[in-house]
Amino acid sequence: MAAMEARTAASAGARVMARCDELAAISESAEGLTRVYLSAEHLRANALVGEWMQAAGMRVWQDAVGNICGRYEGQRAGAQALLLGSHLDTVRNAGRYDGMLGVVAAIETVQYFHDRGTRLPLAIEIVGFADEEGTRFGITLLGSRGLTGSWPQGWLDQVDANDVSVAQAMAAVGLDAGDIASAARNADDVAAYLELHIEQGPCLEREALALGVVTAINGARRLNCRFVGMAGHAGTVPMSHRQDALAAAAQWMVYVEAQTRRRDPQLVATVGTLQCHPGAVNVIPGEVALTLDVRGPEDQMLASLLADLLSGGEAIARQRGLQFHASQYYGIPATRCDESMQACLAQVLTEVQGRSLALPSGAGHDAIAMAERWPVGMLFVRCAGGVSHHPAEAVEVGDVALAIQAYVAWVQALAERPPLAGPAR
Amino acid sequence: MAAMEARTAASAGARVMARCDELAAISESAEGLTRVYLSAEHLRANALVGEWMQAAGMRVWQDAVGNICGRYEGQRAGAQALLLGSHLDTVRNAGRYDGMLGVVAAIETVQYFHDRGTRLPLAIEIVGFADEEGTRFGITLLGSRGLTGSWPQGWLDQVDANDVSVAQAMAAVGLDAGDIASAARNADDVAAYLELHIEQGPCLEREALALGVVTAINGARRLNCRFVGMAGHAGTVPMSHRQDALAAAAQWMVYVEAQTRRRDPQLVATVGTLQCHPGAVNVIPGEVALTLDVRGPEDQMLASLLADLLSGGEAIARQRGLQFHASQYYGIPATRCDESMQACLAQVLTEVQGRSLALPSGAGHDAIAMAERWPVGMLFVRCAGGVSHHPAEAVEVGDVALAIQAYVAWVQALAERPPLAGPAR
Repeated sequence: MAAMEARTAASAGARVMARCDELAAISESAEGLTRVYLSAEHLRANALVGEWMQAAGMRVWQDAVGNICGRYEGQRAGAQALLLGSHLDTVRNAGRYDGMLGVVAAIETVQYFHDRGTRLPLAIEIVGFADEEGTRFGITLLGSRGLTGSWPQGWLDQVDANDVSVAQAMAAVGLDAGDIASAARNADDVAAYLELHIEQGPCLEREALALGVVTAINGARRLNCRFVGMAGHAGTVPMSHRQDALAAAAQWMVYVEAQTRRRDPQLVATVGTLQCHPGAVNVIPGEVALTLDVRGPEDQMLASLLADLLSGGEAIARQRGLQFHASQYYGIPATRCDESMQACLAQVLTEVQGRSLALPSGAGHDAIAMAERWPVGMLFVRCAGGVSHHPAEAVEVGDVALAIQAYVAWVQALAERPPLAGPAR
Repeated sequence: MAAMEARTAASAGARVMARCDELAAISESAEGLTRVYLSAEHLRANALVGEWMQAAGMRVWQDAVGNICGRYEGQRAGAQALLLGSHLDTVRNAGRYDGMLGVVAAIETVQYFHDRGTRLPLAIEIVGFADEEGTRFGITLLGSRGLTGSWPQGWLDQVDANDVSVAQAMAAVGLDAGDIASAARNADDVAAYLELHIEQGPCLEREALALGVVTAINGARRLNCRFVGMAGHAGTVPMSHRQDALAAAAQWMVYVEAQTRRRDPQLVATVGTLQCHPGAVNVIPGEVALTLDVRGPEDQMLASLLADLLSGGEAIARQRGLQFHASQYYGIPATRCDESMQACLAQVLTEVQGRSLALPSGAGHDAIAMAERWPVGMLFVRCAGGVSHHPAEAVEVGDVALAIQAYVAWVQALAERPPLAGPAR
């Protein structure tokens, strides 16, 4: 089968842009886009996406956790499937491409095969995941963990800001909390998981490339840290006698930045919050509380960076007669993308845009959950200024057309030569 | 006349401690000590201090701004006076020695001469200043600026937390706001101003000395500073592409500390507050607001440090593609203590404690205002841990006894050889 023509891709790209606009109008507020799990807007978005899937020749159903699913049959009924997906929920006051673009572009891919009456050796399934962001209940990846069958017991009791539990919210939209296990897919049903997503970072833009191959979804660790010194009068305590918690924190933040840069360009470390006590212009800070967020594409690399940063904090505190405390409150391991899927996509990207770029994903995605059971691969699309989770989130229609071309070619190639079974990590 | 005997000084010291306790009981709340300008407690403290002055052979009056004043006549009526003072108001939840110790110890000094029927060439006057801290109206040195005749016009309209103006508060305690000018003293009436005060810092304690000679009251500048960069996703923006406002602020704080230490041990610089925007664990800070407080005993030294620190902030911002803003919102020049009064006190301290230590005052005092018109000198008394403005504020009775010995000797010497007229700066 020949590659998708540029003209066909352009009209598919235009339709994707229009459909993202249409989805963006389904929001709990007239101003800005907010669509959370198990809301009326969630069900309306599912219905609309279901119509589009149906028009692309797919059999459509909503599963037990509220994912909207479609199947385009393979050359033989009951064939193993390539599963294409992303999420339909949003953060508050969101952009219109984070998640949605991946679902809508996947539908165009199927539409392409459907329009030509083409059946592939594998079936193609699409999932519009119900909740990736965790906006409503503070727990993330609820949709994809439905498919992997790894919902923790406690999730049903988790409550939203109005004290409505997940179980109650499911009942309110006609879902049966007792039936969640039925959303899980057999490992054998699926050959691999593919996700198209906006980059949410500036790397592709800086390389002047529309598309990139994701190598891994970065692992992350979050820590609460604290320097404890001694508050004092800003006028009466000489510099040499101070135990200034903020001065120590400053020295440490300089160390954090320098060491992270020195080790690997794929590592990032961020101090995003800092509180200073007692916090008066004329009082030497006695205590500083700050957070550290570190991310990287390999767990070993991340663990080694973190050990370095923490021992740096301790050394600085010791030199200055202060105390340093750090406790990790969140951690997620790195998710490797399947090597053969990466190689296949790199070849496709070289064809459609002249060269390929491999980059890690700094943000989390449904592929994290899916990788627990299946090989995963991700295709990144350039977004303007790397801006995401913001109404200013934007993509170029030309990039989207190119992305659909690439997605079609990637799906076609993988359907011929699926990756070896087994999860990515 | 012979020096004060140790036994006499010891009993004077014990009386001072008891009187400080007695004054500490005059508080607007049963828990902790708070006594603000023009309160019922202020008048009660004035009355009590007036009784003690009277018992020390002084003529006593309350002046037009509410200072309690006493005069111990010199060898001839109407002689020029040495003016001894400190303040009787407090911060909220204060210690019991900041201010009060200076007033009560001055009374013991006069008591000593009175007990022996000694008259000096100069009269001795004592002022218990009505407001130094500015706790009630947010304006400071109201008592001493009454004596110098430098009350700004707008002060009468300044209001407290209950919207009561200074003028209304004066009327409520029987003071006439129209009569404020009468509190001002003729320049010729006073030869010099002397103040005994707790150090409020750790230097004497670290030198194992009870008493020290103050060289100057540090000048101070306070600035609001801001680094403006670009917020971003903590996971998706590589280190090399960041405009992290907190990383820039950290680098600057390290510079502030290092340059201040490098220049002069008498200089201090403090970043006491820092706010980070947007302030989330997973967001690169786009803007950081922080305060800078710099102090030093000489204005030129201070101006030069400040220029260095600000150009450092600008250079760091420029290197990183950020903006740096700084605006000074408060400044007070340094106040030099009179050289001859310092020399005289240094000699006295060498006699009473074996050696003398010269140090600047990091905190402000009534002597700042008094120095606008008269030569000023200050005697510091060691306080435990350098702690002040806190109920834990503490002095040793032995140090107080030594302080009274020194105060007597200093007053005696200055009454024989007063400093040349003219303010300190």
